[in-house]
Amino acid sequence: MDFVPNNIVWNNNYITKEDRVKYLSYKPCILWFTGLSGSGKSTIANAVESKLYKMGTKTYLLDGDNIRHGLNKDLGFSEKDRTENIRRISEVAKLFVDSGTIVLAAFISPFQRDRKLARMLVNKDEFIEIFIDTSLKICKQRDPKGLYKKVEVGQIKNFTGIDSPYEVPTNPEIHLKTDELTIEQASDKVINYLKSFNYLKDLNR
Amino acid sequence: MDFVPNNIVWNNNYITKEDRVKYLSYKPCILWFTGLSGSGKSTIANAVESKLYKMGTKTYLLDGDNIRHGLNKDLGFSEKDRTENIRRISEVAKLFVDSGTIVLAAFISPFQRDRKLARMLVNKDEFIEIFIDTSLKICKQRDPKGLYKKVEVGQIKNFTGIDSPYEVPTNPEIHLKTDELTIEQASDKVINYLKSFNYLKDLNR
Repeated sequence: MDFVPNNIVWNNNYITKEDRVKYLSYKPCILWFTGLSGSGKSTIANAVESKLYKMGTKTYLLDGDNIRHGLNKDLGFSEKDRTENIRRISEVAKLFVDSGTIVLAAFISPFQRDRKLARMLVNKDEFIEIFIDTSLKICKQRDPKGLYKKVEVGQIKNFTGIDSPYEVPTNPEIHLKTDELTIEQASDKVINYLKSFNYLKDLNR
Repeated sequence: MDFVPNNIVWNNNYITKEDRVKYLSYKPCILWFTGLSGSGKSTIANAVESKLYKMGTKTYLLDGDNIRHGLNKDLGFSEKDRTENIRRISEVAKLFVDSGTIVLAAFISPFQRDRKLARMLVNKDEFIEIFIDTSLKICKQRDPKGLYKKVEVGQIKNFTGIDSPYEVPTNPEIHLKTDELTIEQASDKVINYLKSFNYLKDLNR
């Protein structure tokens, strides 16, 4: 028999999540931004993070593009690898919540089951799904990384919204229709949600 | 052609590491505890974390046993999987440093090249290798998880120090010979190192 995970004993850390949260003036959670490539996930997540930073909360942004240079650099864009990509990010997001951070995760995350898995890893009120609802037409027009153009000429395959599905969130906590909103308005909606549901209860700004 | 990582554009986050570190009274870094199973890595790391917590620094402990229930639950204990285990943990530790945390990583991490890879991911002064130097004899006597017993009766294979190598650190920043030290003394040595090298410069305790 090999040395398998069965032999793992869960370690009781002396400093607990409760210890870390005790003196915080906000409630750690995951803000999960999902939407098509070019929908504005990273842009809005960055705007939200800036606001939270100015309010004195501890934040960290996990970004699909950035994380693929490090933790997930061994993964491609097949359906299997996309699922593993989101699984690892979800586990890392959970660690950050545990550490006392508001973690912003900005990923296409096209599959409902993967987003559900992310949600299931933390407590019910620690996961806030934010659907960045931008039409494919607008995303194609923006095309900030020139990816839709590459898809058009056949240089990229398995691209979400084109030849790989995007499963629309059925019941996200926040639904941002970016065609009707500025970045300022969109990020304010997220902040207002957090205020309404007492995530920023002791931050009177 | 598939949608491969070549198409990734590094995203400039608005809130930078510098922003996050600006108001901290300590210097974020990785405290990397390496040593045999049962050497006392987790115990000492926990004691160090408790002290840092009381000093008001933001800390987080990554633990070999704990992380294998989440992020790395797909990995076994073959040499390849052990390397991947440490690689992912290193990348996560880097993210925590980037977020402004003193991250404690307590892993057997038996291979020099893996620890070197972890070191190379961050700035030179952000990685502090701590060798928990406990003789195999003592580790076997302690056997807190009963693993050495399982090895003896052939229930576990590929066990570090028995039938899988442990490569001793050649130049660790801190070398703790636990046969001669109490947990209190060992953890104090780490704290004193951090004080000496100005990681806790504004914390006058």
